[in-house]
Amino acid sequence: MPEPRQERSRTTRRKLIEAAVDCIGEVGWAGTTVALIAQRAGVSRGAAQHHFPAREDLVTAAVEYVGEVQIAEMRRGAEGLPSGRSRIEPVVDMLLNLYTGPMFRAALHLWVAASSDESLRAVLVPLQAKVGREAHRLAVDLLGVDEARPGVRELVQSTLDLARGLGLANLLADDTSRRRRIIRQWARVLGPALPEPEVTAVGG
Amino acid sequence: MPEPRQERSRTTRRKLIEAAVDCIGEVGWAGTTVALIAQRAGVSRGAAQHHFPAREDLVTAAVEYVGEVQIAEMRRGAEGLPSGRSRIEPVVDMLLNLYTGPMFRAALHLWVAASSDESLRAVLVPLQAKVGREAHRLAVDLLGVDEARPGVRELVQSTLDLARGLGLANLLADDTSRRRRIIRQWARVLGPALPEPEVTAVGG
Repeated sequence: MPEPRQERSRTTRRKLIEAAVDCIGEVGWAGTTVALIAQRAGVSRGAAQHHFPAREDLVTAAVEYVGEVQIAEMRRGAEGLPSGRSRIEPVVDMLLNLYTGPMFRAALHLWVAASSDESLRAVLVPLQAKVGREAHRLAVDLLGVDEARPGVRELVQSTLDLARGLGLANLLADDTSRRRRIIRQWARVLGPALPEPEVTAVGG
Repeated sequence: MPEPRQERSRTTRRKLIEAAVDCIGEVGWAGTTVALIAQRAGVSRGAAQHHFPAREDLVTAAVEYVGEVQIAEMRRGAEGLPSGRSRIEPVVDMLLNLYTGPMFRAALHLWVAASSDESLRAVLVPLQAKVGREAHRLAVDLLGVDEARPGVRELVQSTLDLARGLGLANLLADDTSRRRRIIRQWARVLGPALPEPEVTAVGG
């Protein structure tokens, strides 16, 4: 059965995005061209250029796609977790492992390239802010904390900044066992520091 | 008065190392050659090659030099600080600002390049471990904590990983005001979590 046209177009788009992430992670931004991505995706150059006229367009699509996939995976992974304090350690485990894979490597290539490339920076800065806000929202939801309380916002932010630092530490050598000890300790820090979700008071 | 020969040689070395950090930070590892570094340092290519036969040698020297300069600066900066809990916030401030400058940008270029360059990776991995140990030792000394107590080692490590994550967040846009709030909150978390240094007991 042939795929309907719209479906086929979506598949092509997804293939191109996945190929872009692989290419950037392997050869860096400087070596990545729309032609190379098309070749890797098994898509004609014309079709690639139809979907993504410039490679900056692919960056936007790739960062948004990767963000959506990761957020969906995390929400699914958190579905079975208990509520209350006992969910802190498994959620911290998920969050602090968030940036240890090949997608973070691709993101790092982009960040570093953007630090000396104005047009890439113009694309990345608002994108990074958007993805950062979404990751923050996810962390707040998964931890089940009340951000209106003082200090909670900064603790959630610290958790995500720490996660990115751990991603860096894992870039050149396997850092899993050290990271595991940090996760355990971080959950201990976060546990009492994060207030329990408020219970509706009866009477007032 | 002409510089004595040994002194002149040290000056040349330092010029080359500083030029290497600038070059790597600006054009990345791929664009950095010994010839380019020599030109930037105002040193003859022959002299540069005498000091550093391969650009990997310059990486080793540069990472060690940057590490030493930063550690000396931090120790000097911490000299006037009070002892006890009240030093936590100023020390956290120093530590969490450690990776927000141009040297971190150069280091990031190297890390990312090394993730797909075996020979650079072979140079960087032991170097990263060494510099990491020195930063850890510095943080323990400056915070004045006892690492033999459970959890303290991981908290100090988290502080440095968080610092690197904050370095990333500051790469493309000025993140100072958000970082300032995180520093304040992190000092609050670390204060009670880090036990006071032990006091020598009299009697037993």
